[in-house]
Amino acid sequence: MSDSNPSEFDIIQSFFSDLGHADGATQLGIGDDAAIVRIPVSARLCLSVDTVVEGVHFPAGTAPQHVATRALGSALSDLAAMGAKASHFTLALTMPKSDSRWLKSFAKALHDMAVAFGVSLVGGDTTRGPLTVTVQVHGWLPPDKALTRASAREGELLVVSGTLGDAGAGLRCLQQALSDPNAEVDYLSGRFYCPSPRLLLGQQLLDCGSACIDISDGLLSDAQHLATASNVGLEIDASLIPLSPALQRLFPKQALELALTAGDDYELLFTLPESKLKALQSLSPVPVSVIGKVSGAGQQVSVKGYDLDIQQKGYLHFD
Amino acid sequence: MSDSNPSEFDIIQSFFSDLGHADGATQLGIGDDAAIVRIPVSARLCLSVDTVVEGVHFPAGTAPQHVATRALGSALSDLAAMGAKASHFTLALTMPKSDSRWLKSFAKALHDMAVAFGVSLVGGDTTRGPLTVTVQVHGWLPPDKALTRASAREGELLVVSGTLGDAGAGLRCLQQALSDPNAEVDYLSGRFYCPSPRLLLGQQLLDCGSACIDISDGLLSDAQHLATASNVGLEIDASLIPLSPALQRLFPKQALELALTAGDDYELLFTLPESKLKALQSLSPVPVSVIGKVSGAGQQVSVKGYDLDIQQKGYLHFD
Repeated sequence: MSDSNPSEFDIIQSFFSDLGHADGATQLGIGDDAAIVRIPVSARLCLSVDTVVEGVHFPAGTAPQHVATRALGSALSDLAAMGAKASHFTLALTMPKSDSRWLKSFAKALHDMAVAFGVSLVGGDTTRGPLTVTVQVHGWLPPDKALTRASAREGELLVVSGTLGDAGAGLRCLQQALSDPNAEVDYLSGRFYCPSPRLLLGQQLLDCGSACIDISDGLLSDAQHLATASNVGLEIDASLIPLSPALQRLFPKQALELALTAGDDYELLFTLPESKLKALQSLSPVPVSVIGKVSGAGQQVSVKGYDLDIQQKGYLHFD
Repeated sequence: MSDSNPSEFDIIQSFFSDLGHADGATQLGIGDDAAIVRIPVSARLCLSVDTVVEGVHFPAGTAPQHVATRALGSALSDLAAMGAKASHFTLALTMPKSDSRWLKSFAKALHDMAVAFGVSLVGGDTTRGPLTVTVQVHGWLPPDKALTRASAREGELLVVSGTLGDAGAGLRCLQQALSDPNAEVDYLSGRFYCPSPRLLLGQQLLDCGSACIDISDGLLSDAQHLATASNVGLEIDASLIPLSPALQRLFPKQALELALTAGDDYELLFTLPESKLKALQSLSPVPVSVIGKVSGAGQQVSVKGYDLDIQQKGYLHFD
């Protein structure tokens, strides 16, 4: 592209053709009125859409590669939480002006993440307006299985993947513009900008897990969603919540609060029978930690070892 | 909803649950991390995403019901152009503030249109930001058929559905805020705000049509897309272009220019062998008009009976 202000059609052709994993399932990709995708035998379609808006979900001026990874990573995380095998995605990109340099970085990062997680871009729309990125992801589920929020049973263990609070701490680092970048700041801001959707873990949980949700709004808030949907109580032991060394070192006083209430970690929170834990721990590609258990009905989330302020249950848009 | 500023979760529950056609294909709808949809045997998935932005695709202050019908209607039109049977859709809604009254009107109009066209809302995201509506539509195609832009053959007829130029004229009426509303202004602005996706016609064309595109950018611009994709020339006879009585009466001098260059009509432009025309005309739920023919290679669109200004080929975003 020599033109620094390409038209919509040039943008699509130049930057978004053949983006992501090439799997042969795409019968017709970008360039016609709609895309056509081949479907595995007996599969169910699993889909989720996520929008990120500049100034709301990421700071103004965020580098294009970070906008891309945050948008695709957070969307794929929803498929992970269902146990789906990710297949393809679409991109609706609204931007104030067409900027080849910005688009090139954005498309490169999107491509790299798409290849890493085995998904291909099959359709999209580019429009002019305030920077807004909507990613819709699709995956396949076997007809008789799904990992919903509604299947937790009394007596099961409550488990999370990875560590919590990192993304919230990363956002604080970015907002405070900490002037001495170091490995810990890089790690935490990377956790905010580049979520790692736990797709393989989600697929493993199809066989051994009961209920599952991804942590986008914050542990307490998402635990409450799971408790409500399953009509169970959840008891969390604060001392068991996994915290990264970087979080504990940079935010020693706020680490637990961040882990409980900050969103954007995109780890999985799930329940499973205790008998299944050992097998899962040996298979899972990411560490999983028991943080509590499913108690009886009541739909209450209680936290042992932390003074829970009911006002800080997470991140509600529009509140 | 007694709260006039509902949270994201209340919005979803209150306004967007069970929206649209209830067809039993939705295994899991709004409320979990992702939706799950059952798939017809042997089908291919056909999908398209469209974004409309306030101030770009529709005037600021547009009534919520018009925002809804324009967004869903234009998206469904892409499925019509592929010959797909529409099934379900998702909604990514970004709005400056949560407004129950606005949302109620928006959701009501979306529901009514979704029922009319047999689609159900299965997922979505609501975020805070400048008013932006992204609709992704999904449909099914048989494995061996599709209506692409690339299949036009020399000697075929070039045909359009309905009448052209109405939506562009409607937008002019709205921009000029014509103070004397009358039936013609209502008709034209209705054609802009409430597109009628030609889904049944598209499915009929699966059996008899060759190439197809929907007219969103303008007849000349979309004819050029079809000519390029099919590697053919197209000869249009301006005297054959169907114009509505309202357009001819309110815009007698600009009617043909609007029909050729204004977008947003969402009629189908397609090619088919002459031998198939009569059968189609007797079946089609909307009038179809022959406006020209497919000539040899060259990828040129020529218009007989109109002084074609190459600068006015339609509506390019970012230009």
